[in-house]
Amino acid sequence: MELINIMSRITDILGIKYPIIQAPMSWVTSAELVAAVSNAGGMGTLGPNAGQNTIANGPDDSAERLRTEIRKTKELTNKPFGVNYFPPAVDAGENPYGEALLKVLVEEKVKVLVVVGEANEKDIKRLKEFGFTIVFRELHPTVLGAKKAERAGADIIVATGFDEGGSTPDIPVGTMTVVPMIVDAVNVPVMATGGISDKRGVNAAFALGAEGVYLGTRFIASVESPAHESAKQDIVKHGTEDLILLRTGYGGYWRATPHSTALEAQYLNDNQVNSTLSKIGNLKTAMLDGRLEEGINTVSSGIQFIREIKTCEDIVNELMADFISVNY
Amino acid sequence: MELINIMSRITDILGIKYPIIQAPMSWVTSAELVAAVSNAGGMGTLGPNAGQNTIANGPDDSAERLRTEIRKTKELTNKPFGVNYFPPAVDAGENPYGEALLKVLVEEKVKVLVVVGEANEKDIKRLKEFGFTIVFRELHPTVLGAKKAERAGADIIVATGFDEGGSTPDIPVGTMTVVPMIVDAVNVPVMATGGISDKRGVNAAFALGAEGVYLGTRFIASVESPAHESAKQDIVKHGTEDLILLRTGYGGYWRATPHSTALEAQYLNDNQVNSTLSKIGNLKTAMLDGRLEEGINTVSSGIQFIREIKTCEDIVNELMADFISVNY
Repeated sequence: MELINIMSRITDILGIKYPIIQAPMSWVTSAELVAAVSNAGGMGTLGPNAGQNTIANGPDDSAERLRTEIRKTKELTNKPFGVNYFPPAVDAGENPYGEALLKVLVEEKVKVLVVVGEANEKDIKRLKEFGFTIVFRELHPTVLGAKKAERAGADIIVATGFDEGGSTPDIPVGTMTVVPMIVDAVNVPVMATGGISDKRGVNAAFALGAEGVYLGTRFIASVESPAHESAKQDIVKHGTEDLILLRTGYGGYWRATPHSTALEAQYLNDNQVNSTLSKIGNLKTAMLDGRLEEGINTVSSGIQFIREIKTCEDIVNELMADFISVNY
Repeated sequence: MELINIMSRITDILGIKYPIIQAPMSWVTSAELVAAVSNAGGMGTLGPNAGQNTIANGPDDSAERLRTEIRKTKELTNKPFGVNYFPPAVDAGENPYGEALLKVLVEEKVKVLVVVGEANEKDIKRLKEFGFTIVFRELHPTVLGAKKAERAGADIIVATGFDEGGSTPDIPVGTMTVVPMIVDAVNVPVMATGGISDKRGVNAAFALGAEGVYLGTRFIASVESPAHESAKQDIVKHGTEDLILLRTGYGGYWRATPHSTALEAQYLNDNQVNSTLSKIGNLKTAMLDGRLEEGINTVSSGIQFIREIKTCEDIVNELMADFISVNY
């Protein structure tokens, strides 16, 4: 029915075979997951609390734990991988976590940072001065933010549609619209994210002008993911229509599977979520520890198309089946 | 960069060259618009109040006005075209408008009905008994509704993503997700709608498994559209980020351009919209009469990609540039 022959600048920029990034999700990434994705030809990324199952004791402990996980990843793969970084807004003063992590990233010679947050030009410029390749994802994507990030030196921009899981953009505009909107705004290559979890979504993203895809949820339900088995099965057995939306407390929504904490929280506003429900947002409880009723399992609308837990190699191969790799 | 060779069952079912339908929008369709789309190789459809600029005096007047517009359309094209029909729920008792319109549709030998509403099997079965080809669009699309419509005899199902304009599904799940969700649910062909207004959107829809596309907003901004010139220019000059969401009063949202009525109404809930703002929902004021501040101009998130008013022929040719027509 279709023949899609896809080219991408992203494989060249990142030095990888397939233009697919496993998103740096909080708590549910690890050296094993990241290496599995990178070994399959995509790029894995270590997210916040990668490989951990306890909360770090301050910035230095957090940074040293990251160092350990980076070293572990390097033992498991010789392919490129990325690390998540939330930059401190330079003008906002000190951020001890950001600075401690940055020191480790430089010392460990990490090459690619996935920077998620606001499009702060000073932050991005500063990171570029250290020599990092920057994949930038604005949390609430805008044309202005994409242009600012490009001007500051971002190498790749991630365009996030509302089909995404946790946490969504604040305004519900779908992946179908956001991707070409950002593609038109910048000259650097764009990766699509939001609701993509099978080959159809990948091919649609390319048709929209994206040159790569950035997936979280599909990789949670992988063999190598550190997510709790019950959280993985929770994804496999639920569909898009089962999901509920609850405010994050800082703009946007979590899309969550239907368990008691999420069901109770769906009618709360930002302030109520912030003040009374600290368990929402600590994704560890449900997603890593598997206590589904006590926390939230946050996933994209693309769970409809995830019906089986597979290895990262199988996932990457299936997603990129129509991609013709040229150089890697 | 890409070669997409698209096949579709929809061209055979409808007897048209390109699998593209101009949606039956309220007030802003007419014999001229519909014939222009059909003559360009797609299928135009007459929507509620097609060709009118005053409100009809009851069911019989409404039906006779439709008869006039159908005859006018036949004079302007010998290609297939459709007519919108909101069926009365059979169990809900009489609906004089529905019955009066149905009588005219049968007498005028209309072949294709675009049925928008809930997936009521009795309604669809009854219409099939009259011999109509049914394009069914569930207002708030669900897997269950799609299956019910197929079982009742619908020939084509339209999958509507939240990227759409007026009125949106009640739950914000994007076109990127809804299309493959419905494709997986049924065996009849699916058309995609929501945020599609350039070739990229069309090709993405096909990559997602759709076999056709169903567009409203792109055709409002056409030369042949009866929309007021200022409403057309309003689309051309605004982008997706300018749009605001306001409740319809019956579930879902209108996506509207930023003028005073819409700006004031964006914080109202369903009851407030229902009880105090009858001007919202009467799309005639802004869209047909051009009094943009007094009504709402409701459009899809795909307005970002509409930068010029063009003829329907140019629009259809551009959208379907990668479609290889086989038989028509």
